[in-house]
Amino acid sequence: MKAEIITIGDEILIGQIVDTNSAFIATELNKIGIQVHQISSIQDEKEHILSALKEAESRADVIIITGGLGPTKDDITKYTLCEYFNDTLVQNDAVLEHVTELFKKSEHKILTKTNVQQALVPSKAIVLHNENGTAPGMYFNKENKAFVSLPGVPYEMEALIKNLVIPKLVSVYNTPCIYHKTIVTQGIAESILAEQISDWEDGLPDFIKLAYLPSFGIVKLRLSAIGNDKIKIEAAVAKEIEVLLDQINNVVIGFDEDSPEISIANLLINKKQTLAIAESCTGGLIASSITQNEGVSTFFKGAVVTYYTQSKTDVLNVDKEVIDEYSVVSGAVAKAMALSVKKKFDVDYAIATTGNAGPTKGDADAEIGTVFIAIATPVEVVVEEFNFGKNRFKVIQRAKNKALQLLRKEILSAK
Amino acid sequence: MKAEIITIGDEILIGQIVDTNSAFIATELNKIGIQVHQISSIQDEKEHILSALKEAESRADVIIITGGLGPTKDDITKYTLCEYFNDTLVQNDAVLEHVTELFKKSEHKILTKTNVQQALVPSKAIVLHNENGTAPGMYFNKENKAFVSLPGVPYEMEALIKNLVIPKLVSVYNTPCIYHKTIVTQGIAESILAEQISDWEDGLPDFIKLAYLPSFGIVKLRLSAIGNDKIKIEAAVAKEIEVLLDQINNVVIGFDEDSPEISIANLLINKKQTLAIAESCTGGLIASSITQNEGVSTFFKGAVVTYYTQSKTDVLNVDKEVIDEYSVVSGAVAKAMALSVKKKFDVDYAIATTGNAGPTKGDADAEIGTVFIAIATPVEVVVEEFNFGKNRFKVIQRAKNKALQLLRKEILSAK
Repeated sequence: MKAEIITIGDEILIGQIVDTNSAFIATELNKIGIQVHQISSIQDEKEHILSALKEAESRADVIIITGGLGPTKDDITKYTLCEYFNDTLVQNDAVLEHVTELFKKSEHKILTKTNVQQALVPSKAIVLHNENGTAPGMYFNKENKAFVSLPGVPYEMEALIKNLVIPKLVSVYNTPCIYHKTIVTQGIAESILAEQISDWEDGLPDFIKLAYLPSFGIVKLRLSAIGNDKIKIEAAVAKEIEVLLDQINNVVIGFDEDSPEISIANLLINKKQTLAIAESCTGGLIASSITQNEGVSTFFKGAVVTYYTQSKTDVLNVDKEVIDEYSVVSGAVAKAMALSVKKKFDVDYAIATTGNAGPTKGDADAEIGTVFIAIATPVEVVVEEFNFGKNRFKVIQRAKNKALQLLRKEILSAK
Repeated sequence: MKAEIITIGDEILIGQIVDTNSAFIATELNKIGIQVHQISSIQDEKEHILSALKEAESRADVIIITGGLGPTKDDITKYTLCEYFNDTLVQNDAVLEHVTELFKKSEHKILTKTNVQQALVPSKAIVLHNENGTAPGMYFNKENKAFVSLPGVPYEMEALIKNLVIPKLVSVYNTPCIYHKTIVTQGIAESILAEQISDWEDGLPDFIKLAYLPSFGIVKLRLSAIGNDKIKIEAAVAKEIEVLLDQINNVVIGFDEDSPEISIANLLINKKQTLAIAESCTGGLIASSITQNEGVSTFFKGAVVTYYTQSKTDVLNVDKEVIDEYSVVSGAVAKAMALSVKKKFDVDYAIATTGNAGPTKGDADAEIGTVFIAIATPVEVVVEEFNFGKNRFKVIQRAKNKALQLLRKEILSAK
């Protein structure tokens, strides 16, 4: 079973938005054993859409189309699908009722002419109810191939895929088994890791593929197996991972969707311990990353972002003399911030960051990219200095990941 | 001039990563008048790469390939390009020297065999020096078509595109003019906006296209014009925008890359006023979004994230009786948080958020999606209640944008 994803809209092609939808759809299709063979982003022009549909139909069994279903004049997907399937639009009463309801509840109240058009659907389509928005999903069957058209708004599309499209595809098709297992490592460079596991990699059976996915100090190793027997391929992957873990256990922080944030959450929730954060150069990113995940209010008490030098004294009581003597980007200040926020929030562990993310030097003399990270534990404070390069975004991201890595190490080494 | 982008790697097709590279490349190509006709994400398999190269060559003048240049065994782009161009690999001394230098400076020190292979390049390629990484970019010319292969690591690819690829393409080709201008609006639904500017939209000349790009309470209107005379098309777009602004000026917060964060930064820097933030349900996202941009330390003093209910009292001195009487998700608590953080950081303006982002109810009885936002100004505190739906990610993002919108309104209406 092969699938293709077609995303429609100039916004991706001119780089105004990033295509997050395809990643989501690909993940969900993979879970039910449908491999995405190609993702194509094309213009919302009739001829381009028609030829992309034709090409995809010639190569794939399932074609998922996103975008171009909005209420505005630049949205032409529905009309083009009508032409492709030689169909006409008819009013769908359920959709009209839903759109009317949505507008009653909204801050805008009035249903416009444009909104009413959302209730027009091709007669050959099975309507997929979009609980989160006005544009319905549409499912077409053509010679045992499935064409699914979905709105481009991510959370609307996501609910449609999970609740309606995936169950439908599972009920219609017999699919081979695809199994992915990802090992998440932190604190080792891709090339060093590759060297270290080279013999193991060479010994992998043909039906298991390995991919390296590096990102800001984290390298994910993804094993992908394909076969007809689900239990057999899962067992084969498990066996390979067992051997691998023996070799790299010290750098593994989790599996699959695990992240430094989730790894920390699991550790602290298990130990019933708490965390607070004092951020300067990371500007709130560590707190924000931790609170992206649900259920963190059991261990994460809060954070203080002291972006101004003066605020480090005013809000975190960092001794002005320490700042004057060591400079604001220093181990001494990181240590003082960690201890202060630990006390303030009455927690077991605290992280503090102070650094120079660039692109220009701030109040400190420190080189751009210099970051001091302090971890306060129940018994001590450890401080390390890093240089994460000259790219502001990269410096902030890597400082965030490194801080979580250091915290993890301290939690694990605690008695 | 047409371009295509080919991204190579299973990680996009199985949904493990999002293709941010293509958005960047498309933006940069557009700036020099090269239109991206299609973006294709394909597997890192030899046959698939070869056929994608052939298809792209038949349709486009410039083909940008990213990914598959890493030092590990799953990276086959370089070898496949050799086959496509009937070429062989030769050692490039400059690349070898650069790779050796990079490793000397790194925490790993030792240059591995795998790293040395990064210095092998196809003999027909012009090497593009990758200052940020070990895999060089490569530029091939075939019958006046440009093939450019770049590493997939975003900041490495970005520097190569900006510093070497774009200047090279500009020097080789004559391109038509493409001009994009984006108007950023906030606080109006896409469909209402569309209705409001319908007549104006119908009157646009054929060479100007309009697109609506909605995202978490923000709707961008993008005008794209194509022509041969740069001055003429820019003037035509400017004229249309002038007419448009007369109709929707009250919801416009900026242009092009402007965001609520940048709009606030510009306003406060101009007024020499300062900001602090108290976040609960937004968990640090507002602070983190503001500090993504450089130069914010002139107005952004800092933030306090009080995720625990108890921390609102301990750290922000919110009266426990107020929390008990009104509940932690309430206008009274938002107001107290805003006033407290304003005083603590000694600023002109403060934002406070408290809400229930879901997916389960927390310490408060408030419905999931309920968020109270308070804005403390130099003279008062205003508080509003919202419901941003049931999707955790969406609730947090929309609360962030709405808070910035409310702050903007207060700054603008100040005497």
